[in-house]
Amino acid sequence: MKRIGILTSGGDAPGMNAAIRAVVRKGIFDGIEVYGINYGFAGLVAGDIRRLDIADVGDKIQRGGTFLYSARYPEFATEEGQLKGIEQLKKFGIEGLVVIGGDGSYHGAMALTKRGFPAVGIPGTIDNDIPGTDFTIGFDTAINTVLESIDRIRDTATSHVRTFVIEVMGRGAGDIALWSGVAGGADEIIIPEHDFDMVNVAQRIREGRDRGKKHCLIILAEGVMGGNEFADKLSEHGDFHTRVSILGHVVRGGSPSARDRVLASKFGSYAVELLKAGKGGQCIGMLDNQVVSADIVDTLENHKHKPDLSLYDLNQEISF
Amino acid sequence: MKRIGILTSGGDAPGMNAAIRAVVRKGIFDGIEVYGINYGFAGLVAGDIRRLDIADVGDKIQRGGTFLYSARYPEFATEEGQLKGIEQLKKFGIEGLVVIGGDGSYHGAMALTKRGFPAVGIPGTIDNDIPGTDFTIGFDTAINTVLESIDRIRDTATSHVRTFVIEVMGRGAGDIALWSGVAGGADEIIIPEHDFDMVNVAQRIREGRDRGKKHCLIILAEGVMGGNEFADKLSEHGDFHTRVSILGHVVRGGSPSARDRVLASKFGSYAVELLKAGKGGQCIGMLDNQVVSADIVDTLENHKHKPDLSLYDLNQEISF
Amino acid sequence: MKRIGILTSGGDAPGMNAAIRAVVRKGIFDGIEVYGINYGFAGLVAGDIRRLDIADVGDKIQRGGTFLYSARYPEFATEEGQLKGIEQLKKFGIEGLVVIGGDGSYHGAMALTKRGFPAVGIPGTIDNDIPGTDFTIGFDTAINTVLESIDRIRDTATSHVRTFVIEVMGRGAGDIALWSGVAGGADEIIIPEHDFDMVNVAQRIREGRDRGKKHCLIILAEGVMGGNEFADKLSEHGDFHTRVSILGHVVRGGSPSARDRVLASKFGSYAVELLKAGKGGQCIGMLDNQVVSADIVDTLENHKHKPDLSLYDLNQEISF
Amino acid sequence: MKRIGILTSGGDAPGMNAAIRAVVRKGIFDGIEVYGINYGFAGLVAGDIRRLDIADVGDKIQRGGTFLYSARYPEFATEEGQLKGIEQLKKFGIEGLVVIGGDGSYHGAMALTKRGFPAVGIPGTIDNDIPGTDFTIGFDTAINTVLESIDRIRDTATSHVRTFVIEVMGRGAGDIALWSGVAGGADEIIIPEHDFDMVNVAQRIREGRDRGKKHCLIILAEGVMGGNEFADKLSEHGDFHTRVSILGHVVRGGSPSARDRVLASKFGSYAVELLKAGKGGQCIGMLDNQVVSADIVDTLENHKHKPDLSLYDLNQEISF
Repeated sequence: MKRIGILTSGGDAPGMNAAIRAVVRKGIFDGIEVYGINYGFAGLVAGDIRRLDIADVGDKIQRGGTFLYSARYPEFATEEGQLKGIEQLKKFGIEGLVVIGGDGSYHGAMALTKRGFPAVGIPGTIDNDIPGTDFTIGFDTAINTVLESIDRIRDTATSHVRTFVIEVMGRGAGDIALWSGVAGGADEIIIPEHDFDMVNVAQRIREGRDRGKKHCLIILAEGVMGGNEFADKLSEHGDFHTRVSILGHVVRGGSPSARDRVLASKFGSYAVELLKAGKGGQCIGMLDNQVVSADIVDTLENHKHKPDLSLYDLNQEISF
Repeated sequence: MKRIGILTSGGDAPGMNAAIRAVVRKGIFDGIEVYGINYGFAGLVAGDIRRLDIADVGDKIQRGGTFLYSARYPEFATEEGQLKGIEQLKKFGIEGLVVIGGDGSYHGAMALTKRGFPAVGIPGTIDNDIPGTDFTIGFDTAINTVLESIDRIRDTATSHVRTFVIEVMGRGAGDIALWSGVAGGADEIIIPEHDFDMVNVAQRIREGRDRGKKHCLIILAEGVMGGNEFADKLSEHGDFHTRVSILGHVVRGGSPSARDRVLASKFGSYAVELLKAGKGGQCIGMLDNQVVSADIVDTLENHKHKPDLSLYDLNQEISF
Repeated sequence: MKRIGILTSGGDAPGMNAAIRAVVRKGIFDGIEVYGINYGFAGLVAGDIRRLDIADVGDKIQRGGTFLYSARYPEFATEEGQLKGIEQLKKFGIEGLVVIGGDGSYHGAMALTKRGFPAVGIPGTIDNDIPGTDFTIGFDTAINTVLESIDRIRDTATSHVRTFVIEVMGRGAGDIALWSGVAGGADEIIIPEHDFDMVNVAQRIREGRDRGKKHCLIILAEGVMGGNEFADKLSEHGDFHTRVSILGHVVRGGSPSARDRVLASKFGSYAVELLKAGKGGQCIGMLDNQVVSADIVDTLENHKHKPDLSLYDLNQEISF
Repeated sequence: MKRIGILTSGGDAPGMNAAIRAVVRKGIFDGIEVYGINYGFAGLVAGDIRRLDIADVGDKIQRGGTFLYSARYPEFATEEGQLKGIEQLKKFGIEGLVVIGGDGSYHGAMALTKRGFPAVGIPGTIDNDIPGTDFTIGFDTAINTVLESIDRIRDTATSHVRTFVIEVMGRGAGDIALWSGVAGGADEIIIPEHDFDMVNVAQRIREGRDRGKKHCLIILAEGVMGGNEFADKLSEHGDFHTRVSILGHVVRGGSPSARDRVLASKFGSYAVELLKAGKGGQCIGMLDNQVVSADIVDTLENHKHKPDLSLYDLNQEISF
């Protein structure tokens, strides 16, 4: 393989640039040319493609977002879109493709592979909701960003003896809420993967108040319900001076954490090794602290991401 | 004067602890005992008062919030509340009071002074909306916190070629929006103190797009309208892939910036000097880079805070 | 077991407070009283011991350092010191001890266990140089703190086309240099666990310059040599406009990262479970993403910490 | 004036990019072309000059360092250098020059003006040591960066009951030490502009210890002496478990603070207005919260920067 392409797709995540950099540098180190595709699958179909050199990825490892831009492009689910994409790749002499992104990106990579074009998926999303890996690129940065906000809100909650409902991102997954909640010393963590009972929540807030606890922080995954809706329902069980804070897109950006940059560098380098070895149709992951890859079709069809629910039980025992 | 009291009132602001520390240390340095009053005017009336020693304010200068807690207490507007408060102060032998907070806190200090009890106001609020000072304690930290969020959102906005409406705090004042907007390179800053025309806003976004601009950031002061309402109205003039981010209570907390700690230290020290000199009924400020004080009644009744509108014009000329 | 003690020892590390909090809360949750011992083994011998309640560990999870203080105390290597320590523990009715710290702390825990007093070690050090765990408490925060500094120095290095030698902590271990170096996009990483050749270093700097590279960043583990010594030796091979930056104690402090707080919470909770089950003489670790424990004597005598050297090779391939 | 040039010179400072951006955008807004000169006066003489468009300064306001690069170039003190520089400017049709930097940069601007080429100086240095302005671009960011380090070191100092000598930048000026010292709650601030007596320093440390103070932080301006030298001299007066931390180039970089970006934007815009009005030979400043300009020759020859020594006295009264 003498020439590979790379694109980012779906929501951006801190560390995507570090992964692109690793792919480009590792490719060049191995004698492979790397071509960058702008705007994800949309740019692939449109032929918005250019060669990337060492200098193009210089001074990029610390940058949030993705300098190849991203875009949602549902049209790539069609045969027409996929054939057009492969045509463009061939026009540029590209023989393998690295796709960085989430669920939708993986489906794009899978579709290309099924049509005979080798593609490798790298999990890049703040939500950590991708099967085949314990951690996705961007998750570590996101939980630290959320944590900073929790720490700030704790100042105000303590100063005013208030209850705060902090809604965090995560789409259908509770990982961001779980990790940032444990790290933030949250009194309650509400996630889609675990039941909760509003009566108990209210009861525990009352017990904390009675013990002299100054603040109460509830971390709520957006996949359960919205923060204002939750606060309304909570208010049916008592008046807790509740305020709502919705941590939105702030959490997607920012300079990636050390972990995310290292993870991205490992994933990017490994993606090049896979393609060099002629292996397409793979998705990369970190499982039990090891970089691994697996069949992308099998991973998408037969595996489901699960958060580390031991964190939920842990929090019940140490944050009261 | 041998004994003074201190309380924080209204919304908490980063730097309040630094101001309390300065009052306590400067007081002790000058041979004055300092008593801390918890929960603002509510705690004053309830007699939640204790002596503060050097060590009580150790390791506090860097902390957000207020370790004396704060509370809203409308009852202090009544004669009964004020007389009860003065009674408590006298019971503890306190001869002068420092009040840190915003508008409502100033009114409390004014009321005490009118009843013959010398009180001094220190402007502490993130909103910067207090007359008699160019800057309030907490404002500098708040604009830096907002700025971090703007920088993060820019990553995503650029990666996805989107328009973002970022709603920021400030109550009726546009200061936070103005300063963070100029510092964040915002395309538009929408504040209560200046008209805007949605048609022009839409027009400028389009022009930016045509020139190849990847993102558009609109900083909106909450005093104008809510972020979602603004986005709805903007959408009547075109589809700009708009997202809304509401920076709420996150902005109130956090470790104070260098400026806020220095400002708080100067204000706290000066408050003790005023009371030592027997001057109550004053409010402290920073005007033209000098620490000053003025009659609190005159300041509240005859002056109005105005933001630095030259920043608005500046932004029009350099952020397009 | 109805009563356990906890102390921190050796150099402080971010996350130690989160671990103490987890031990106290989990203990109380399980019906065990927890006693805090100030100043490590020195305080143990001196009997500087007090009961910790839920509220004592409130608002602590986000704090750097250790609120139980730490101290070096070589006297605890003697029989006299150890017997005195056990006497104090018995005086307070304490039946098991949690020790958070590094190598020296583990030896203290081991000595107590050998004398029949059950003690459990939790790895807490920024250096990551403890056998029996992939990661120690404080390491993740430290590499992110170093990374912030590298990012800042890159600004200046790029602006001035300079070479920077950045000396980082780690005692005899290269982990901090390795992780922060890969994450920081360092041109060279110099660690005790891997040879280097100054001629090659100089050669690669020259090649980068010839390709138009604006800056050169060399991350140097303190275990190899000092930064100034390195710069002197480098200068024998050419003039690279070299500056030296020594990142010292700054790296030990700061609010712990999300990872470190979660790791500390898991470790603290698990330590209580071990003691509750009557298991002393254990040290806790995170291996392949699982919380585990192992015999502390065997771990100290037969295992040696090794950094992830795959990072070294990775960096050679992607940072040129 | 239809075409102006801009360069950055001397040590880089956070906010320089924001100033360049303001000059470029304001220039274009006013119908003036702006040319960027790389590598300061060295690039001017070499003719390393290019036109800057709106997009060239996009996504730059938040970046540390200077994207026009900087360099020391003593040769510009010679007649030959200056004439060559003016020749290059004329070759590109440039009629006025904005110079961002410190003392040396101002002398370059002054020399050009004396030879009939209008140049305007903008104060850009972290050291705050430029006459004619209360604050320079980069100073606010630098003191916040130093402050973060002080906060981190306090964690360790408190945990270990130690004395820390923290050496900070500032060349011959004590501003960084003064502001970060007050903000950091330093026990002692040692600056070139104020005497100190090591016997008193030792005495005050002892008194603090006796009162139970856990840590002692001494902020030392590099203009007085080196940190290690200071610690050696201090040790002649007692053993205070002293550690030294030298905050070097870390302090020069990083994303600029809100204040620095606003200051830079105001200065950049005003520089264009001056040149547009045909006024060269001016240097810009912020005095008593107002943007002003003054004759650059008079400012350099007859004025001297003085730090705000009231901060020194303040610290003596509130940090003991």
